[in-house]
Amino acid sequence: MPIADTGSTIVAPCTPPGAGAIAILRLSGPRAFAIAASFLKPVRSLKNPRPRMAYMLSVTDGKKLVDKAVALFYKGPKSYTGEDTVEIFCHGSPYIIRSILNLSIKAGASPAGPGEFTMRAFLKGKLDLAQAEAVNDLIASQTRSAHRAALSQVEGSLSKQVAGLKGKLVNLLARLEARLDDSYGDMPPFGVRQFLAKANSVTAEIRKLSNGFENGRRVKEGIKVAIAGAPNSGKSSLLNAILGYPRAIVSPAAGTTRDTVEAGLEIDGFEVNFTDTAGLKVRTPDSIERQGINRTMAAMGTADIILLVKDASIAQSPMDRLALETALKNTGGKTARLIRILNKSDLLTGKVKKIKKGGLVVSCKTGLGLSGVKRAIISGEKKYFTARTTALVTSARHFEALSLAAGELEKLRGLKRRPAFPLELAAEHIRGAASRLSSILGETAPDEILADIFKNFCVGK
Amino acid sequence: MPIADTGSTIVAPCTPPGAGAIAILRLSGPRAFAIAASFLKPVRSLKNPRPRMAYMLSVTDGKKLVDKAVALFYKGPKSYTGEDTVEIFCHGSPYIIRSILNLSIKAGASPAGPGEFTMRAFLKGKLDLAQAEAVNDLIASQTRSAHRAALSQVEGSLSKQVAGLKGKLVNLLARLEARLDDSYGDMPPFGVRQFLAKANSVTAEIRKLSNGFENGRRVKEGIKVAIAGAPNSGKSSLLNAILGYPRAIVSPAAGTTRDTVEAGLEIDGFEVNFTDTAGLKVRTPDSIERQGINRTMAAMGTADIILLVKDASIAQSPMDRLALETALKNTGGKTARLIRILNKSDLLTGKVKKIKKGGLVVSCKTGLGLSGVKRAIISGEKKYFTARTTALVTSARHFEALSLAAGELEKLRGLKRRPAFPLELAAEHIRGAASRLSSILGETAPDEILADIFKNFCVGK
Repeated sequence: MPIADTGSTIVAPCTPPGAGAIAILRLSGPRAFAIAASFLKPVRSLKNPRPRMAYMLSVTDGKKLVDKAVALFYKGPKSYTGEDTVEIFCHGSPYIIRSILNLSIKAGASPAGPGEFTMRAFLKGKLDLAQAEAVNDLIASQTRSAHRAALSQVEGSLSKQVAGLKGKLVNLLARLEARLDDSYGDMPPFGVRQFLAKANSVTAEIRKLSNGFENGRRVKEGIKVAIAGAPNSGKSSLLNAILGYPRAIVSPAAGTTRDTVEAGLEIDGFEVNFTDTAGLKVRTPDSIERQGINRTMAAMGTADIILLVKDASIAQSPMDRLALETALKNTGGKTARLIRILNKSDLLTGKVKKIKKGGLVVSCKTGLGLSGVKRAIISGEKKYFTARTTALVTSARHFEALSLAAGELEKLRGLKRRPAFPLELAAEHIRGAASRLSSILGETAPDEILADIFKNFCVGK
Repeated sequence: MPIADTGSTIVAPCTPPGAGAIAILRLSGPRAFAIAASFLKPVRSLKNPRPRMAYMLSVTDGKKLVDKAVALFYKGPKSYTGEDTVEIFCHGSPYIIRSILNLSIKAGASPAGPGEFTMRAFLKGKLDLAQAEAVNDLIASQTRSAHRAALSQVEGSLSKQVAGLKGKLVNLLARLEARLDDSYGDMPPFGVRQFLAKANSVTAEIRKLSNGFENGRRVKEGIKVAIAGAPNSGKSSLLNAILGYPRAIVSPAAGTTRDTVEAGLEIDGFEVNFTDTAGLKVRTPDSIERQGINRTMAAMGTADIILLVKDASIAQSPMDRLALETALKNTGGKTARLIRILNKSDLLTGKVKKIKKGGLVVSCKTGLGLSGVKRAIISGEKKYFTARTTALVTSARHFEALSLAAGELEKLRGLKRRPAFPLELAAEHIRGAASRLSSILGETAPDEILADIFKNFCVGK
């Protein structure tokens, strides 16, 4: 895709493939109106079409009628892309869609590349890069939380915050530059401490923003939960009880689950992906079991949350200890969280109270404690999501840029120890950090980065 | 679906499921504007929206923004359904689509049933029933011929012709009724012969229309071609050569194809569905072979065309004779057509000319004769399609109604033999035939028939 070529007029269907009542094709570019006029009739409506007015027209191939369709004309810059745009609403037949595409191409349009409409909107300044990137997330959003994160980014919440931080850096830079320009030494002595305190506060804000990325990633991709524990602790029963339907086979025999079982659930607007695992054993002679336990380990290693299940009606076994050790190894010091479940509480009598501090008391049989488990799973995200005053970072690219910007700024501290504060070097670090922030907004994004971002879009977006 | 309830306002997405750049939701009914206004902001644009003008609005759930969307307002009867209609163009995210559906339902809309928008268009007189039925075919059309047949029916070609025929019957009926009302015997003697000649000409027109159904069905559903013949006559090679890619496994060994192999191809705008079959054998000891041959018989029994392949480089074998007999059994007297192929002509030298009248001379190796085979396959349809001055009947319901109408009219001939021409009885037959024609246009269609027709539509159409 030639990045900078907005001289051409592009065309693509904007609705999902497949037969539907209505399909939309979009033309965008300097010749959009003329190309549409080449196959839409009657021509007189198209001499000077009124913007944003729905015209009922005939799509024709030579003299043959292809379809009766509605067309909307948007005069740039008042359009999604900022260019002249025609949207054609036709019957959603594969043949008709193909025909209109071919008619457009014959009249001089090029097939749009992935995300090219949104990229043009970015190039024409209708959206900054962070906003443009979020259009893809918005379209893909399946849950309330993913939708809200994407929509607020499209609406500019992240851009505003990043632009604000960049503004603060530009101010700091201006101070340094004024000082550097002061060749006559007219200015009072430079307040290094005060300057660094300001820089530190910006760094902290950037770190706070980037720290939201783990939450953002989970909101966008779903929270990965591994259900682990000793054999026969009721892991599959817990999965089924949380889901509300019998996804996994359960039996009173230990070792019923051999391979991992996966299932997704939306909890209070968050996507949660569960992996039920084979019980951990101290000895595993069997080769099938060995493979199952390898998968258990892999699931625990990549989980955001480990639900560690223990049968509360029996004493702690060596296998419980092994499961706990493994779980701690996979959560200690990492971002993954451990939630301990004391299962089969229906088999307990007076002991319930005593064990409460060991974890969440649950009975898959009676349903006791299940809603508490669900709440615990989303508590990390939910807290962040509802209390946040900052935007949520959901893109690895943004996270990386923020981390690099903070890293640059943190180098300023080291300069303090020098006998004379090196103004030039400090300015260099601040410029570096500001440029990282600019890259989020696309102010400094080279063509390769653009190509890389938009290739993940579908055609038509 | 309560057929006659157009007092409600319905809502449905009109674009295929799945994430796309844009999705369309449609509201139709007396409260469409009010329901849309309940979640679209700013409210002032919606006080008295200008018809057919695209408004850029916010979809809101309480105070929360759901999406920025474009809305078009159509004031009934100037809309697809004839009712007040709002079309909302939002980002094609599953979450957003679900949210707008829920907001509409919360504000009083009902989820639309299959084809309910088109059914309302019919009930409001925007389309007759034959036109409404073709909307579904138009959306499903994959090939040029299916598209043309469906589009011309949506545009009213069939309806016009059926209405014309009905008009002629009404004229004939008027004559009879004038005569029946002539209780004083003032009129000149009734010209039975002239009357019957007119009726016969209408009957012939109806038969001509209904005779197109086999073509229409093939245009709509594709032409079914079975490739049959003796083992090792090169059936799979022929399939591959026609398709232009190696769909079926071929080898020099006889009996390579055991199960049937299916493949579709568009030839000159017509959909053709090929079934390559196992070679017919005089003796079939093997149980796998037996099953294969059962399938061969089934494919030949349901084919529109049998391509009977013979290896032209060898003399006719008992298996060739068996294949020919079977093919003739499946085409003689039926609408199925037999096309004989003399394959492997590259192995012949001077004999080619001599065998030409035995069938189409083909070489899969050199490509000789392949385009002739393709032409032969679609010749039946093509001739009908390009030369036709009449509409193409593609619906079994219409075919049945036309056949029954013609049958009623043909009963008139029997009345001629009676000493006095029974005017009352003749009027009854003509009324019966006219009512069959009316049912095509939906003038006399009861609710059950409507329900039956529209249940095959998808929701949103």
